[in-house]
Amino acid sequence: MMKYFIPKGTRDFSPIETYNRNFLIKTIKKCFKIFGFYPLETTSIENISTLNKKYGEEIEYLIFRILNSGNSLNKEILNFLKEINKSKNIIDNNIIYNFLSKKALRYDLTVPFIRYIIMNKDKIFFPFKRYQIQPVWRSENPQKGRFREFYQSDADIVSTSYSLWDEIELIKLCDFIFTELNLSITIFINHIYILKGLVEIVGIKNNLWKNFITILDKWKKIGEDEVKKEMLNKGITLKSFNSIRSLFSIEGDFKNKKKFFEKKFKFSDKGKIGLNEINFIYKSIKNISLYKTKLKWDISLARGINYYTGIIWEIIPKKCDDYNSIGGGGRYDKLMGLFGMKNIYGTGISFGLDRIYLAMEKEKLFKINKHNFSPSKIIFINFGYKEVLYSYKLLDTLRKKGISAQLYPSYSDINKQFKYAYDNNIPFVIIIGEKEIKSNKIKVKDIKNKIEREYNNVNDLINYIK
Amino acid sequence: MMKYFIPKGTRDFSPIETYNRNFLIKTIKKCFKIFGFYPLETTSIENISTLNKKYGEEIEYLIFRILNSGNSLNKEILNFLKEINKSKNIIDNNIIYNFLSKKALRYDLTVPFIRYIIMNKDKIFFPFKRYQIQPVWRSENPQKGRFREFYQSDADIVSTSYSLWDEIELIKLCDFIFTELNLSITIFINHIYILKGLVEIVGIKNNLWKNFITILDKWKKIGEDEVKKEMLNKGITLKSFNSIRSLFSIEGDFKNKKKFFEKKFKFSDKGKIGLNEINFIYKSIKNISLYKTKLKWDISLARGINYYTGIIWEIIPKKCDDYNSIGGGGRYDKLMGLFGMKNIYGTGISFGLDRIYLAMEKEKLFKINKHNFSPSKIIFINFGYKEVLYSYKLLDTLRKKGISAQLYPSYSDINKQFKYAYDNNIPFVIIIGEKEIKSNKIKVKDIKNKIEREYNNVNDLINYIK
Repeated sequence: MMKYFIPKGTRDFSPIETYNRNFLIKTIKKCFKIFGFYPLETTSIENISTLNKKYGEEIEYLIFRILNSGNSLNKEILNFLKEINKSKNIIDNNIIYNFLSKKALRYDLTVPFIRYIIMNKDKIFFPFKRYQIQPVWRSENPQKGRFREFYQSDADIVSTSYSLWDEIELIKLCDFIFTELNLSITIFINHIYILKGLVEIVGIKNNLWKNFITILDKWKKIGEDEVKKEMLNKGITLKSFNSIRSLFSIEGDFKNKKKFFEKKFKFSDKGKIGLNEINFIYKSIKNISLYKTKLKWDISLARGINYYTGIIWEIIPKKCDDYNSIGGGGRYDKLMGLFGMKNIYGTGISFGLDRIYLAMEKEKLFKINKHNFSPSKIIFINFGYKEVLYSYKLLDTLRKKGISAQLYPSYSDINKQFKYAYDNNIPFVIIIGEKEIKSNKIKVKDIKNKIEREYNNVNDLINYIK
Repeated sequence: MMKYFIPKGTRDFSPIETYNRNFLIKTIKKCFKIFGFYPLETTSIENISTLNKKYGEEIEYLIFRILNSGNSLNKEILNFLKEINKSKNIIDNNIIYNFLSKKALRYDLTVPFIRYIIMNKDKIFFPFKRYQIQPVWRSENPQKGRFREFYQSDADIVSTSYSLWDEIELIKLCDFIFTELNLSITIFINHIYILKGLVEIVGIKNNLWKNFITILDKWKKIGEDEVKKEMLNKGITLKSFNSIRSLFSIEGDFKNKKKFFEKKFKFSDKGKIGLNEINFIYKSIKNISLYKTKLKWDISLARGINYYTGIIWEIIPKKCDDYNSIGGGGRYDKLMGLFGMKNIYGTGISFGLDRIYLAMEKEKLFKINKHNFSPSKIIFINFGYKEVLYSYKLLDTLRKKGISAQLYPSYSDINKQFKYAYDNNIPFVIIIGEKEIKSNKIKVKDIKNKIEREYNNVNDLINYIK
């Protein structure tokens, strides 16, 4: 037989995986709704000119580009060849890309959301709260928990006014979701302005900010030695590195750390702003309960994407060997400006469905597993034409009551039909043969408990199987 | 401000559109489950070698190809140029495609499903019933109701034995879904072997079969004159065309038509097989109720895709000006064979979510419209820090009970906050100011009915808003 494969980094989801993923999506969606977020879906395929707006060069190798198709391709190939003849340089991917591809699969849900806002700004009432649960595609090297096609679940608040209640709502939302899922989490929180304050007081130059943030974000993945090496490489001095290293290691509860940094930020306005806002979050959350969430200020927390402007955060399962982020977010007040829309504030959170799935599986939190997953509650044995017609009346009634029931599709060996029920964990088998039709009885077999019963009417049967 | 666009034929879905689409998906999914179908999801990106298996050359211009990315592209471009130099012919899309692209977005859900079965055949218990609701992509010219990205909802039964109860179950499933949706439909049904019988008796040659089917499928779209022209063009004689034309116009109920064609198919074994099977469906369905469905034998019904081998059908809304298919399916017993798996039978149905959406909208069947669509049932006015902290206790209680409630995110002008509630159709506004905190009251305003009430505790409030 021929062999078939799926592309590297992509996945199929078996029935039980799909079921549990759907359960996650349903739960998260329910919570988004309870918090008053609108649903939204955007096209999978975006113009590259839109995607470029935010990501810039970094996407070069990360987006899946759609090849222009049909007749236009020939023209583009011809133009491309002319271009090459002119420049005598064929090894420039950009030229190739620009001729061959003008569209790509979306890379995240934030840029499509902002693009949607710009296109529909006259129809939207601000503050605009929306959630979006859709797949995104990245051509990264696949790793454990990292795939080329994966689902993001985002909730964002875009507003004409600046309010830290948005952050509080998102933290509450997070807590609500993971309370529903029964998964304890830690939210690590920090502030871009605190990092800016730190950079200021340890004397890292302004032009190294972007490098600093990008390398810092990798700390938990690559370790201190590697971070040190990379930072020194980029021109951060050993003295600066050591100072910031020692500031990162300040221990104690929030109050103590706050006190310490208040002194440190005496001459850093940026540091002060960051500290004030973190303090606001802490002070308010103390008065508003969280159930499954521990909030933790991590002064070394950075997020690689450089559009964040305020509070940033990352969600980690409480029981977690390695630093395994299952979501994160932050404030991005300048992002809409990049797209030409000024005085608009935004903050949002993104949940990684696959990461949550893995964490839930590890803690055995899914109720459905291979021992109890079944396509229906009931199966009718197929005894032949007359019996099937008779069974359909019962099937109809059961289905109308929302009870999942099916008929074994062909009239075949009874053992084979029972084996199908066993193999698929179907709990109840209904036996309606000639005898049962004559006596007007419904015979039902409880497979697991090996009990056989007879009922006179379908309502008694329904009560029994419930 | 800069302008942004989305690619031709793709769409964003506004909150209310997303809501109603989700309603459709949820309903269809519920019905699939009630009928005992397993859920399944497959990767969006397939190897072109897999897709080619079924569709062959027809997909050339219809699939969205993913451009190979990164460093490998240069090598491929170089090889491509060498190839061109060799052949002195650059205008062959196939050469270009093969070098630049080895993956593509899925084109339907059937081929991925079959590919999944082949890859997982040792883990699957047959009969395998699965549903799959995911987007597919086709680079066709966009038209009304036809898009480049759209959702399919498929239910298939793949089995080691042949049984027409599979068809019956799918027809029942169809009826169940559209009964839930309250949309009356007609199912037009026919049989490939009836068409083969017709071709036999009117003397159309075997080698014209594929052309005949493809042109016939377009009848409702392009009209009789155009069909005649195309058929004659392909070598079907005028006599054959006229004979088949007159056979298509046989009127009467099923019984009469059956009688008529029994005579006609006296010497056509294929015709007899088809007629017998159609008769089985009719006879059985007569004994099993359908609620929102009228079954109609349309002897001229063909389906363009040439892998069908038995019963074929198409679903049309009852109230429908033009022939607007909202779904269809059929038996494809030889499809698995193409992939190297013999003695496996398959039959399935595919629902077009967008077409159903349009039909539902036309008949005003969605309960949610722009006058009653709202992101939450309740909004709390934001009176400032102390009031918000107090409100959060109530918010918590409401949300835990599953009631959608939110807080206006910033402390701003009360009129602006009320306007937000109006604009978003939020039915209840909760007012908790200094006075209410002091008197321990909850003030609630019913926006639509302009009623203001006060409650002492949250349970009374919940009873009221329910």
